[in-house]
Amino acid sequence: MAEFFTGLKRTDMCGTLRHKHKDKEVTVMGFAQKCRNLGSLLFIDLRDRTGLVQVAFDSSKNKELFEKAATVRNEYVLVVKGTVRARSAKNKNPNMPTGGIEVEASDLRIVSEAETAPFSVADDVNEQLRLKYRYLDLRRPALQSKLVMRDKIARTARNYLAKQGFLEIETPFLGKSTPEGARDYLVPSRIKKGSFYALPQSPQLYKQLLMIAGMDRYYQIARCFRDEDLRANRQPEFTQIDLEMSFVDSEEDVMEIAEGLIKKLFADCLKVKFTEPFRRLSFEEAMERFGSDKPDTRFGLELQNLSAEVAECGFGMFTDAIAAGGSVRAITVPSGAAAFTRKECDAFGEFVKDFGAKGVVSALFKEGTVPSFFKFLNDGEIAAVKARLSVKDGDAVFIVADKSDKVVFDSLGALRLHIAKKLSLIDESKFDILWVKDFPLYEYSAEDGRYYAMHHPFTSPKNEDLQYMESNPSKVRAKAYDLVINGQEAGGGSVRIHNPAIQKLMFQVLGMSDEEIKERFGFFIEAFKYGTPPHGGLAFGMDRLAMLFTGTDNIKDVIAFPKVQNASCLMTGAPDYVELKQLKELGIELRAKQPTDKGE
Amino acid sequence: MAEFFTGLKRTDMCGTLRHKHKDKEVTVMGFAQKCRNLGSLLFIDLRDRTGLVQVAFDSSKNKELFEKAATVRNEYVLVVKGTVRARSAKNKNPNMPTGGIEVEASDLRIVSEAETAPFSVADDVNEQLRLKYRYLDLRRPALQSKLVMRDKIARTARNYLAKQGFLEIETPFLGKSTPEGARDYLVPSRIKKGSFYALPQSPQLYKQLLMIAGMDRYYQIARCFRDEDLRANRQPEFTQIDLEMSFVDSEEDVMEIAEGLIKKLFADCLKVKFTEPFRRLSFEEAMERFGSDKPDTRFGLELQNLSAEVAECGFGMFTDAIAAGGSVRAITVPSGAAAFTRKECDAFGEFVKDFGAKGVVSALFKEGTVPSFFKFLNDGEIAAVKARLSVKDGDAVFIVADKSDKVVFDSLGALRLHIAKKLSLIDESKFDILWVKDFPLYEYSAEDGRYYAMHHPFTSPKNEDLQYMESNPSKVRAKAYDLVINGQEAGGGSVRIHNPAIQKLMFQVLGMSDEEIKERFGFFIEAFKYGTPPHGGLAFGMDRLAMLFTGTDNIKDVIAFPKVQNASCLMTGAPDYVELKQLKELGIELRAKQPTDKGE
Repeated sequence: MAEFFTGLKRTDMCGTLRHKHKDKEVTVMGFAQKCRNLGSLLFIDLRDRTGLVQVAFDSSKNKELFEKAATVRNEYVLVVKGTVRARSAKNKNPNMPTGGIEVEASDLRIVSEAETAPFSVADDVNEQLRLKYRYLDLRRPALQSKLVMRDKIARTARNYLAKQGFLEIETPFLGKSTPEGARDYLVPSRIKKGSFYALPQSPQLYKQLLMIAGMDRYYQIARCFRDEDLRANRQPEFTQIDLEMSFVDSEEDVMEIAEGLIKKLFADCLKVKFTEPFRRLSFEEAMERFGSDKPDTRFGLELQNLSAEVAECGFGMFTDAIAAGGSVRAITVPSGAAAFTRKECDAFGEFVKDFGAKGVVSALFKEGTVPSFFKFLNDGEIAAVKARLSVKDGDAVFIVADKSDKVVFDSLGALRLHIAKKLSLIDESKFDILWVKDFPLYEYSAEDGRYYAMHHPFTSPKNEDLQYMESNPSKVRAKAYDLVINGQEAGGGSVRIHNPAIQKLMFQVLGMSDEEIKERFGFFIEAFKYGTPPHGGLAFGMDRLAMLFTGTDNIKDVIAFPKVQNASCLMTGAPDYVELKQLKELGIELRAKQPTDKGE
Repeated sequence: MAEFFTGLKRTDMCGTLRHKHKDKEVTVMGFAQKCRNLGSLLFIDLRDRTGLVQVAFDSSKNKELFEKAATVRNEYVLVVKGTVRARSAKNKNPNMPTGGIEVEASDLRIVSEAETAPFSVADDVNEQLRLKYRYLDLRRPALQSKLVMRDKIARTARNYLAKQGFLEIETPFLGKSTPEGARDYLVPSRIKKGSFYALPQSPQLYKQLLMIAGMDRYYQIARCFRDEDLRANRQPEFTQIDLEMSFVDSEEDVMEIAEGLIKKLFADCLKVKFTEPFRRLSFEEAMERFGSDKPDTRFGLELQNLSAEVAECGFGMFTDAIAAGGSVRAITVPSGAAAFTRKECDAFGEFVKDFGAKGVVSALFKEGTVPSFFKFLNDGEIAAVKARLSVKDGDAVFIVADKSDKVVFDSLGALRLHIAKKLSLIDESKFDILWVKDFPLYEYSAEDGRYYAMHHPFTSPKNEDLQYMESNPSKVRAKAYDLVINGQEAGGGSVRIHNPAIQKLMFQVLGMSDEEIKERFGFFIEAFKYGTPPHGGLAFGMDRLAMLFTGTDNIKDVIAFPKVQNASCLMTGAPDYVELKQLKELGIELRAKQPTDKGE
């Protein structure tokens, strides 16, 4: 039976006890991690959020207490009073921060017994089982420390932003569905039957309205929702450090604040100092050099454009691509010729197909061999290509040609990363941080025959590109910026359009009718009429930052109660069937009869 | 056309400029609040989040700038560069914190023009219109300052709780529906069609699971959702400062932390210091004395129990109530006889009907008159009643008798408040803070013939009352506590059951079958088997605190984008009809054809 422990107050956390606490009378509380009964001596490793401490029971000193301690099993919850004493040299445990001491128990309360858990906290069992018993999984110090770090990131961010004059303002979760971008999660209204709220994909409209309201600087660590088929490391609900500020004249105004925030987080949470400004790459340069708008620049293997060199060659695959408006690009892997087999090169060809390319031309510059595509090139072209690629004997070269530049970039950008990982070229101990800016404002979809906003339709064009809005939308760059850390998009944002005339032009280019604009964004567009400070903002992915800061590749590691790929929670069983009565009250019914175990 | 202001950096906020800034060259940014053109001099009051400053333009000094300034209309957004100068004695404005100075403009950028707004920021127009144009409404300093205070409350609370070792841990919004208490907002699942997520009514289950997970101390400023018909000052989404802690032995462990938090908030946000511990009232005492479990003790008018004095009298209304197990109680209003007309007394009779009472017996002790009900009492009874009520000539007495004690308490408790407001007995400058504890664990519903948990079914009974769990549930008190400020429930919580055997008993008393328990709380009950630290927690109503701290009675004043009574947002139009395509994807359809303007 559970005991009470009235009168005992925790004096210390388990993991914080050290030699300096010698002779201190302490009360510690936690879970029994491991029990060793040596017959007359008994040791329990007691665990709390801060770590472990060894508690010792000696039958010769207190037989009754010893016998009580002998009933303790793993994961029992204990309150222990005792005295800190130094361990003898041979009993010291150098692997434990508290290994130099132990607590000699004088009182023990078993406040909760525990059945044998489905798995041991120390075990590494399959993820399904661990997610079902997430509360047990979370007992693992490796997971606890990640949530501790996440708390620290949030706290540091809040304090930094408060100092910069940002107000934390809560925005609604029950909002209006504005179908653009991802799919909304809907919430049926009981009062206005047939109508629905939407959970926010981001607080975008609200935070801009707060600027119009004169709140000047806003932030929020905001939950956001997207009903998308989950890719790895996506969750249906995710968290953003979201901010917006008024009187922004250029991108740099927002980037300065955001950069300060990131530097503060690195300094306070990881003791990593960045003294130089983060590098700025234009979108164009990022694509040309790395084939990605979130380049990992911790290694080389930069892309080279061979289009000029091979434009007139005899290889149809190259010339056709170029003639169709595409390009031919390559990466050179120094000393790569010996690193890859022909089979691996063929696999690269398969790899790039996921990105739309038809294949890869591989060239291993081994002594005495000549790349097969050289037979289509004359000597001048071969020399030009080799010069462009700075290729030496022993190197490998991989070339992609396509009529779509995007396909070439995506394929080679991904292949570049793939090869770097294969060859362990990435220094994982480094943090590589840079800004990518000057994004195109629009993406053209050949399929749909129209332009789409690359970010969202409230992103401001660059002042100097305003002139192309109607004549050549593809040429217009946006006042948008992404922060990239180790090849991952950590956050991004933009300066917004605050001028109604430009906003109207934006919608025109997107092919939206006045009616459609009114329907989707009417109240929002209306707001801009009554005096709007120039403003801009940014959002960092909180989950992504927590992953980067805790060195995990698994987003579930930084979320207390995550969902799995099909957006369900293995612990609670959500989503679940509900009572028909509930649906009736909401005025909805299921389209097809679904299995339900909760009829009326 | 909107101008850019490249190169101009804000140096100061408008409302912060003072005489000490004299001769400083400043750049300020904000909205034009008021423009006065005197022909050769022109003044614009410029407003930002911090307040107003007067900007002066002199046509004799800079004609071009003056003429530009003359085009400015209310709510234009401006960037102004200029020099701070002292105003002459006769031009000083003592009603403005910045009234001793003005900014003599040397540069002006009109960064946004403004159409005439539907109402002026200075006006007091009807709430409907203000909510539709919430972004204009929020420009009012009175509202802005409330959101500034709300930010400060959140920040202060977070820093306090972090210092106390609480970790901020985010819990899911897409959870499982566990129908108990209020109605859930549901979110249809697209992937598992026919099933639904529920938005959390509180993070209750998650935060208890975090304790089981060994996270030790958790907090979150959490949005919660209840799909209830809105009473005044309720919102479908609301915010809680939510906390939970492990190794709690008694209520006082949690109350100590919570009391520290409230004292810190008062000290830091309002400069109000509380040095004494908050008073503790038992639920029983609170009801007996004030007829309320959230008593406003800033004034007297305490309830008196007359049951003993009138149990044998000749007045059937009294004796019947007592015989049926109810009571007869009264409040005495000193000098009240002259304060109320007979008509007002009759109105009190109507007033209490809302609380289930049949009426009020009013007695005005005016000179020479005898309360009519005295004719049913003998001299001894009259003397006893007068003694019990400490009644003097000139006082008024109001008596309620009912066979239900609850009805008597509710009626007289409400009447007590009603009269105090009528007579302005409440010192609104005071903060009256107290704890109510020792609540009953159960409420018995005669209608349903069963017990309900007064708080929730995870609330721990008091140790000494465990013995009555089966034999006399009504007698069992809970380890629950509410913090009451000025007669409002600011927050509440409980120590939780952590012993599976007691939890089982709890469910039994509530009449829940094993199957039902498993269905509703299966995963949760399971979790308690594997070692559970004794734990407890509490939640403060963030909206309520913000209202108390900003002195408003209107919850909408402390929420940036509130909803109205029918749970709709007048600004966005949410909830709204959605495209049929969206419903199809979710596998749902509308039960009856609803009006929809968005066919496929």
